[in-house]
Amino acid sequence: MGNSRNIPDIVVGRLPVYLRALSLMLAEQCEYTSSHELGERLGISSAQIRKDLSHFGEFGKQGTGYNVAFLHEQIRQILHVDREWPMAVVGAGDLGRAIVHYRGFVPRGFRVVCVFDNKPERVGEEIAGIVVQPMEKLAEELSAKNVQVAMIAVPLEAAQDVADQLVQAGVRAILNYAPINISVPPDVQVQYIDPVVHLQHMTFYLK
Amino acid sequence: MGNSRNIPDIVVGRLPVYLRALSLMLAEQCEYTSSHELGERLGISSAQIRKDLSHFGEFGKQGTGYNVAFLHEQIRQILHVDREWPMAVVGAGDLGRAIVHYRGFVPRGFRVVCVFDNKPERVGEEIAGIVVQPMEKLAEELSAKNVQVAMIAVPLEAAQDVADQLVQAGVRAILNYAPINISVPPDVQVQYIDPVVHLQHMTFYLK
Repeated sequence: MGNSRNIPDIVVGRLPVYLRALSLMLAEQCEYTSSHELGERLGISSAQIRKDLSHFGEFGKQGTGYNVAFLHEQIRQILHVDREWPMAVVGAGDLGRAIVHYRGFVPRGFRVVCVFDNKPERVGEEIAGIVVQPMEKLAEELSAKNVQVAMIAVPLEAAQDVADQLVQAGVRAILNYAPINISVPPDVQVQYIDPVVHLQHMTFYLK
Repeated sequence: MGNSRNIPDIVVGRLPVYLRALSLMLAEQCEYTSSHELGERLGISSAQIRKDLSHFGEFGKQGTGYNVAFLHEQIRQILHVDREWPMAVVGAGDLGRAIVHYRGFVPRGFRVVCVFDNKPERVGEEIAGIVVQPMEKLAEELSAKNVQVAMIAVPLEAAQDVADQLVQAGVRAILNYAPINISVPPDVQVQYIDPVVHLQHMTFYLK
């Protein structure tokens, strides 16, 4: 997970959350904001936000705070989402279909460009204009489409095998929806969609 | 988001992550661990972990560290997942179906007990043994099954309306899969499944 600037990964992980809040502020036509206001919205202390941002530069002005559009653009560049990342989805079942139809990717720097499944009856099916390919085509397609980012939407028993194939095909970042930990080489990123983490966060507050 | 003990919400949000790591250690037959080892696994500093846990009590012993099973059980109790929370899913499309079939809930304190959809052709359909109910049955079913936790898996245009109906029916915690912010009263919890936050976290490390 290391990078040349030695920024703690937990700090990097908060930048997309700041970016999401700033996008919302942009949509609300806010011109300026402060670490205090951002913190209020996110349930994070303003000191934490200032400290996190200070790893990357000086973005605010004393007195006026942060220009929302400027800070938004700076964080987009820092996270490398001032471009569009082509993505692969493996698994064309209910979950894979839902992911391909998800409308949250394109406005924030990502686009699903190919879908794979190992079930012959799913191959050739079209999902949101994308034809499902067999797993045998994975390496060829990913290379042709310059795909470095992939999502795993297969049953948990198959997740590690799929991860291995993705890494072999040159994928450098994997978002795993299956409820199981996967192993990858140290130079490959993995993140998990884990709904239970969010549910348990909320039940803390319930009786 | 307040609670009587005034624990920062960001700290509460890390407890499920600690719990997940501890579950994995239990599965690996680890008997003892340390804030250092936990921190290494999670990319969080050991000081942060000790500080977070100190809000809730004294769980470690000097020299031996934390007993994995004990700390695991304590955090389960703190998060109120030493029981099973019945959950509702609204939306029986691809995503709703995938959620109902998800095998990660039951081992960690949650079980989907009812599914709703407003499309007549989906009502009566059976998903993993659960019959899809019409939205008109929402309040009655949630009350009968004592459901306080719900997941929204409808198109983004319908998410706010569904959230309003859930709150009206007594739901206190909502996990929203739709890529849109929803408004709820201050005594209702909301969390979001946001794959882009995870993707942007990873693209930071990509060229």
